[in-house]
Amino acid sequence: MKNVTELRCVSCGKVYGPTELDYTCPDCGTRIGTLEVVYDYESAELEFKEKVGEGPITDIKRYSPLLPIENLDNLPPLRIGGTPLYGFHELTDELDKVWIKDDSGNPTASYKDRATALAIAAARQKGTETMTCASTGNAASSLAGLAAASGMETVIFVPAAAPEAKIAQLLVYGANVFAVEGSYDQAYDLCLEAAKSYGWYNRSAAIHPFLVEGKKTGALEMADQLNWNLPDKVFVSVGDGSIISSLCKGFRELVEIDLIDEAPHIVGVQAEGADTIARAFSRYNGGEVEITDQSANTVADSISVGKPRDIVKAVKYTYENGGSFLTVSDDEITSALVELARERGVFAEPAAAASYAGLKKALNEDDLGDSEEVGVFITGSGLKDVSAAKKSVEGPMKVSPDLSEVERALDESGLSFGS
Amino acid sequence: MKNVTELRCVSCGKVYGPTELDYTCPDCGTRIGTLEVVYDYESAELEFKEKVGEGPITDIKRYSPLLPIENLDNLPPLRIGGTPLYGFHELTDELDKVWIKDDSGNPTASYKDRATALAIAAARQKGTETMTCASTGNAASSLAGLAAASGMETVIFVPAAAPEAKIAQLLVYGANVFAVEGSYDQAYDLCLEAAKSYGWYNRSAAIHPFLVEGKKTGALEMADQLNWNLPDKVFVSVGDGSIISSLCKGFRELVEIDLIDEAPHIVGVQAEGADTIARAFSRYNGGEVEITDQSANTVADSISVGKPRDIVKAVKYTYENGGSFLTVSDDEITSALVELARERGVFAEPAAAASYAGLKKALNEDDLGDSEEVGVFITGSGLKDVSAAKKSVEGPMKVSPDLSEVERALDESGLSFGS
Repeated sequence: MKNVTELRCVSCGKVYGPTELDYTCPDCGTRIGTLEVVYDYESAELEFKEKVGEGPITDIKRYSPLLPIENLDNLPPLRIGGTPLYGFHELTDELDKVWIKDDSGNPTASYKDRATALAIAAARQKGTETMTCASTGNAASSLAGLAAASGMETVIFVPAAAPEAKIAQLLVYGANVFAVEGSYDQAYDLCLEAAKSYGWYNRSAAIHPFLVEGKKTGALEMADQLNWNLPDKVFVSVGDGSIISSLCKGFRELVEIDLIDEAPHIVGVQAEGADTIARAFSRYNGGEVEITDQSANTVADSISVGKPRDIVKAVKYTYENGGSFLTVSDDEITSALVELARERGVFAEPAAAASYAGLKKALNEDDLGDSEEVGVFITGSGLKDVSAAKKSVEGPMKVSPDLSEVERALDESGLSFGS
Repeated sequence: MKNVTELRCVSCGKVYGPTELDYTCPDCGTRIGTLEVVYDYESAELEFKEKVGEGPITDIKRYSPLLPIENLDNLPPLRIGGTPLYGFHELTDELDKVWIKDDSGNPTASYKDRATALAIAAARQKGTETMTCASTGNAASSLAGLAAASGMETVIFVPAAAPEAKIAQLLVYGANVFAVEGSYDQAYDLCLEAAKSYGWYNRSAAIHPFLVEGKKTGALEMADQLNWNLPDKVFVSVGDGSIISSLCKGFRELVEIDLIDEAPHIVGVQAEGADTIARAFSRYNGGEVEITDQSANTVADSISVGKPRDIVKAVKYTYENGGSFLTVSDDEITSALVELARERGVFAEPAAAASYAGLKKALNEDDLGDSEEVGVFITGSGLKDVSAAKKSVEGPMKVSPDLSEVERALDESGLSFGS
């Protein structure tokens, strides 16, 4: 924490000491009072540059001079970050290169592990033994898995209608799971109340300022892997708004410490049926963020968020970044998922494929300006939701165990493979 | 390939030139005529030592002096290997340390990617554009995913009764999938016939000698990560027998090139309902391997193999290694799966958890001799088969969105969490 100077409310701008608050600004409340972690960049710069010069990228510890961690031993004992960045030439004719940052190989198979790691370190620093969150998906399994590795208890609130497989994963990790008969928003608020009442440390989306700090390591890592030569634009899927906020902040901090000249423009991609942040952004001109929540509906469950909790940060940071938002349909998302798997062997969950769908849409609409290279963040593994993927493909060819049947099936299907 | 001197039949010992055959020894046939890749270890030694001295472990390319690859560019353009090795002190009272090699973060979330990578490189080297395999699980998704990344076509044969989710994953990757109305063994033989008839390159289990070469990188990597100080025993799940063969060979080669003094003893773990190799091993005394196939039945689908294709190698290599076999029940496998997830945050598929179940059993039976450290290979992600995991845990606590219900549920369950 030695480089952290203050926590600052993103809405009213009031500042607090680095350890004065755990969650949000008391004046602005839970929804709009999310806090930003501010560093002494001058003091962080040299230390950061030394660390990133130390050889290989292994995990998020490498970026500790710009992380709010007192003691690195409080991080979970699993490898978080250090995920591959793939450069593909052939994905489009229009671009020189598409960089795909594939975070599906994290311990619980999603980007969320980056945030959870920081929340766990903070809880351990405070001596809190029980953590909680409300989530239907990746944040929950990330907390359950990494807390298990750290020897901590978890209490997790999910809407009772959450997919059985996702709930099963939590239970296998040993989480104490409450299936709440109500919406995600109701589960979120119940978790908030319970956390306060029982003194559990809360890792629900957006509420803790360190979550965005953990997530920004994806931006730092992409830049590091490219030797500080970033693509012109970066596409990322947006649900609660924390990941896009973290990328904006991560790149901005690299400018602050003179490792890059300017931040790539961030393009936030939302599902058409869950576009609260995109709508707020389109009305935003630098003042107060106007929020109109909605009832979310999209195949991409991890970004199926009607009441996004990090909307203020997401809108303000993207505005400062010079970035933009676009929306994609469910069909565009599943097509992108299939294309990504077929063309590049990267199997993303629908919410993660949305970012690639956004790139495809921008290409189709000739909306990439003079970008030559772009980056795309893949934030979760397709194995998290195979059923969604299944709907977008045709079934297998049925044969009895007889070569003539294979021949017939190949003929009928018009497929032909030489050697 | 420059260090490869010959291919040698593991049954009759006949030798062939390094590129003389693609698959098995024609004299001994497909089942027992698997080939071993032999190197000039003297010439490989210096080159290997130079490569592993070059800084960080990134992926399997690091071990190329002991791999049968002509051109590293023929490997799939995804990060294969370079998976984390976790050292846990607290897993047992009896051991100083348990090293867990977690291969679930490979591109298609299993150890099989190591083998597939080599098969793809071999196919590309020959100019073959279509690859095939028979499998119900990890080998199939590995081939489908990595071939997609390499711009190759795949034709995959699965038993029609294979889990829908696993078939869906293949289809998403763009594989041409034949659902064979019959057993895995029938699908295997049909694939063999079709591959011959159409000239497709065959990556079915055990048939290609390079598969074991790819898989041995797990052993090389574990040793490398431990700076050539290996644990006393290494536990690994056994289905077709290729992975255990590869670990024996990998460690043996490290002795050959003087990087380690002796190989750790390998303990092969099979499911009680699929123990063909364990039974053959128990009867083996250095002569011919006696094979009695069976009809397999276990919850661990990836090792549910009644007619293991790499049985000769597995038995002979483990015998030479001084290793052993043990079997575990389905209950022991699911308990191990849950313990591993809860204690260490490592979510393994049942077949992968079997290796840890084997360690638990050896501990319970006081069968570890004076071992102080052991290694355990986790060969596939739990996300591959959430339904199996689900059966081993109790359901969530149902509540309406009201704090008093949470209190009541906590009281009833006897759970209590302070801060």
